[in-house]
Amino acid sequence: MTAGTEQPELTSPGTGTGIDAAADAARRVIESLLRSGDRGGTDLDTVADRLNAVADDLDRGAPDLAARMVHMWRGDGVTRHDPVTGPENAIAPPLHLTGCEDGSVEATVELGLAHQGPPGYVHGGMSALLLDHTLGVANHWAGLSGMTAELTLRYLRPTPLFTPLTVAAHQVSVDGRRIRTSGSISADGRECVRAEGLFVATHPARPR
Amino acid sequence: MTAGTEQPELTSPGTGTGIDAAADAARRVIESLLRSGDRGGTDLDTVADRLNAVADDLDRGAPDLAARMVHMWRGDGVTRHDPVTGPENAIAPPLHLTGCEDGSVEATVELGLAHQGPPGYVHGGMSALLLDHTLGVANHWAGLSGMTAELTLRYLRPTPLFTPLTVAAHQVSVDGRRIRTSGSISADGRECVRAEGLFVATHPARPR
Repeated sequence: MTAGTEQPELTSPGTGTGIDAAADAARRVIESLLRSGDRGGTDLDTVADRLNAVADDLDRGAPDLAARMVHMWRGDGVTRHDPVTGPENAIAPPLHLTGCEDGSVEATVELGLAHQGPPGYVHGGMSALLLDHTLGVANHWAGLSGMTAELTLRYLRPTPLFTPLTVAAHQVSVDGRRIRTSGSISADGRECVRAEGLFVATHPARPR
Repeated sequence: MTAGTEQPELTSPGTGTGIDAAADAARRVIESLLRSGDRGGTDLDTVADRLNAVADDLDRGAPDLAARMVHMWRGDGVTRHDPVTGPENAIAPPLHLTGCEDGSVEATVELGLAHQGPPGYVHGGMSALLLDHTLGVANHWAGLSGMTAELTLRYLRPTPLFTPLTVAAHQVSVDGRRIRTSGSISADGRECVRAEGLFVATHPARPR
């Protein structure tokens, strides 16, 4: 953490090259498939063949799972592969969380068709996924993190797609190993979803 | 719904051809990228180029967003594009939910690296995503569904990756427009996550 006006990034920013560029492109494929559906002019069986060929090539060169798990979890920094902030995980939007001086964490993100629940709105479970992770990062930023024991989401109004969303969280209290954390997703300055979490300060061992 | 011993499928089974085959292949790409990371033998900049070329082709043929939204939401049946059960959405594992005679719904699913939270375990937020959706389908199966107003998750033990998981839910009670619904994710016969939801019987309009 550096003092000053710059808010430190708490998640991996992504390099835009190599594996990160490949995951970015996979993200585009996911969204483009939903955007065109079976209404586009592209032959979809050929698309399937092209994508399967990429997966085949990747699988051929992949290390065994145990070795990959060790490599994936090396170091003690932020993860690069989680489904919320991981630049290497095409499921992740990804969220770029920064730490604020008041102890909270915050990100701005815009979600598309891959994250849709009701027509034109974010899936409630997707909001839960983003908030669970963001509460976890808020704990990390506050200095004591752990595993989710309980999470409560309150849906105040539908969360719009294709709109900049503010995802924010802060640690509320610590009582021994029990951590309480709150967060929210807002659009146009109005809260759409509120989250409250109880975390327990424990971490499963990293693979070695 | 048909009488008899067959449990009716409540979610779209997927056709394995056309758009569904393309989404299946995109699912493989997501997982294979995580499985190989930057440790595989494949040139990742070339992988990015190949995937971007697929997205470019799809985008060129795609209808405009308003038209696509109408098409996507036509009919009153199950959706084919949601991030939990949708065969057309590569983010969806996808979950295949069936309706049971006791009024509950159930699916078996195995999750991989794309859904990882702690090392070797399912991300807690991903469990929340699967359960929110499954509770919604349980409401649909029980005859009255709606939008999530409140969702509480209790994490009893870590949910393992690469293991068959049972995701189940049932409607507990209806009081006017307020619906209470419960569900769980289990592995090896032991509950890992429990969910309780409050839903309100209302649905946003489908695009026309």
